[in-house]
Amino acid sequence: VVRNGVFGGRIADTVSRFGGEVIPIDLEWGTVVTPEEIRKAFSRNRCRALFLVHAETSTGAHQQHMREIGQIVHENGALFLVDTVTSLGGTEVKIDEWGIDAAYSGTQKCLSVPPGLSPITLNEKAMQKLREKKARSWYFDLGMIEEYWNEGHQRKYHHTAPINMIYALHEGLRLVFQEGLDARFQRHRRNAAALQAGLETLGFTYLVKKQNERLPMLHAVYLPDGLEEGKLRQNIRARYNIEIGGGLGEFSGKAWRIGLMGHSSTKDKVGRLLNSIGEELKKHAIIDDATIGFQTAQAIYQNSER
Amino acid sequence: VVRNGVFGGRIADTVSRFGGEVIPIDLEWGTVVTPEEIRKAFSRNRCRALFLVHAETSTGAHQQHMREIGQIVHENGALFLVDTVTSLGGTEVKIDEWGIDAAYSGTQKCLSVPPGLSPITLNEKAMQKLREKKARSWYFDLGMIEEYWNEGHQRKYHHTAPINMIYALHEGLRLVFQEGLDARFQRHRRNAAALQAGLETLGFTYLVKKQNERLPMLHAVYLPDGLEEGKLRQNIRARYNIEIGGGLGEFSGKAWRIGLMGHSSTKDKVGRLLNSIGEELKKHAIIDDATIGFQTAQAIYQNSER
Repeated sequence: VVRNGVFGGRIADTVSRFGGEVIPIDLEWGTVVTPEEIRKAFSRNRCRALFLVHAETSTGAHQQHMREIGQIVHENGALFLVDTVTSLGGTEVKIDEWGIDAAYSGTQKCLSVPPGLSPITLNEKAMQKLREKKARSWYFDLGMIEEYWNEGHQRKYHHTAPINMIYALHEGLRLVFQEGLDARFQRHRRNAAALQAGLETLGFTYLVKKQNERLPMLHAVYLPDGLEEGKLRQNIRARYNIEIGGGLGEFSGKAWRIGLMGHSSTKDKVGRLLNSIGEELKKHAIIDDATIGFQTAQAIYQNSER
Repeated sequence: VVRNGVFGGRIADTVSRFGGEVIPIDLEWGTVVTPEEIRKAFSRNRCRALFLVHAETSTGAHQQHMREIGQIVHENGALFLVDTVTSLGGTEVKIDEWGIDAAYSGTQKCLSVPPGLSPITLNEKAMQKLREKKARSWYFDLGMIEEYWNEGHQRKYHHTAPINMIYALHEGLRLVFQEGLDARFQRHRRNAAALQAGLETLGFTYLVKKQNERLPMLHAVYLPDGLEEGKLRQNIRARYNIEIGGGLGEFSGKAWRIGLMGHSSTKDKVGRLLNSIGEELKKHAIIDDATIGFQTAQAIYQNSER
């Protein structure tokens, strides 16, 4: 299990609760794992699976080299398991091309559907593993659920489905399809670039040091010196009706997590946020001109439209 | 674990998957357990908990003597765990008076809220048990969830809540409160009595032999001789837009399960169902007058209004 943030740590906890032996690959938060580190881990241990988070929501780190990592995992006869909660619908997730055997996501991130469902995917190899022995959890017994949804099986009742959520997911996916994946990913990248430029102009710095490892949909940033993060977040919420996430885990009370996900990833929202932050920073005399963040973002949009 | 239907059996399965030793109290389906049988089970075994289903949705059996059973459980120093999925909101569920230590339910039955949430309740004794050791499941770790919702704790993030469902539950509970529990239970009983009289006139017989052990919200019945249950259910669905549940478990293909739950428990629905069944039975020459079931139900309503 790659632990480079809250959610990698949570996976390790979950695996050990079920009696699995966890071999952690511990990294500095805000970084991602390299293929070399994966190779090293396999050379030292006999691992049956590699589990990693594609988009670490606690730090904004965007796992790279997924295809190469998938190859290393399979060369070692292991399963490649991936958390795609924050990435699905906002950036490329290539299950088969990357050799992912099983992945899960959530509906409430870049699909812009209410929370309450977890889309999952498993290939035949992963399903065979599941069928080998009875699951400890009745609720999570995918072998039983397979008897409901798989072709060639009688639809055997497992649970009452949350039908309203499924209608919501259908509508969310329809909108994704209508926009097109490429256009959607480009929109996320464009708004991310504008927000990043604006935030940096305002004196914010990113937890993830390498620019190419930053997520377009989750911006985890340290504030300029001399500001109390909780107070500032509360003010922005009260005065401008914008909710910003606080830091998770070791970044609690130290950093912000700004979401630009799905339908919320718009030029208008980037502008409103940067102006709101600008107004507050001006009050604290951190900057003289409240609009400098917004202006930088505008320039990025103009460049990208040329 | 009392096993008197599909859901009692499911509880036993769930307990054994988690490594619990299950001592089943096996009963004929369609019956409920007596306090004497509970006493006997405790005299033969050292049990840490008694688990039973209050309203067995597969048979329509309504567990009686809950208070007395609760006393026996506590005299033996065990926990009293109850499935109230189908009973909550449709008939009395007295958690504290009956000595129930923990219970769960569903929103999609007599609360008439979309499926997707499970209301649960645990008393301090049950919570202490939970705190004794780390839960095997991260998802179901109520000790962690306690850190989110309990007074005196900082609201520590465990999961993203399905907020839309919670709004739906709030509205469902508001409607329950507006109607009043007594009026609601009486409504369920009145419509159940009318439906039962109508079904019996049409030649249906109940799986649950004892009238006082039948649920008001779930009518599990055998069809009159000479009818194919699946075909008839399909016809009623196609022609009258009424969906009837098929038998579960050993009653699959043999019986019907007719729900009269929450907002669906109305005089109008009872009448429409009985007329629809009547029409079909007349086509099969089982009865001469398609309206006899409906007429019997009407008489029950008139009597109850006097």
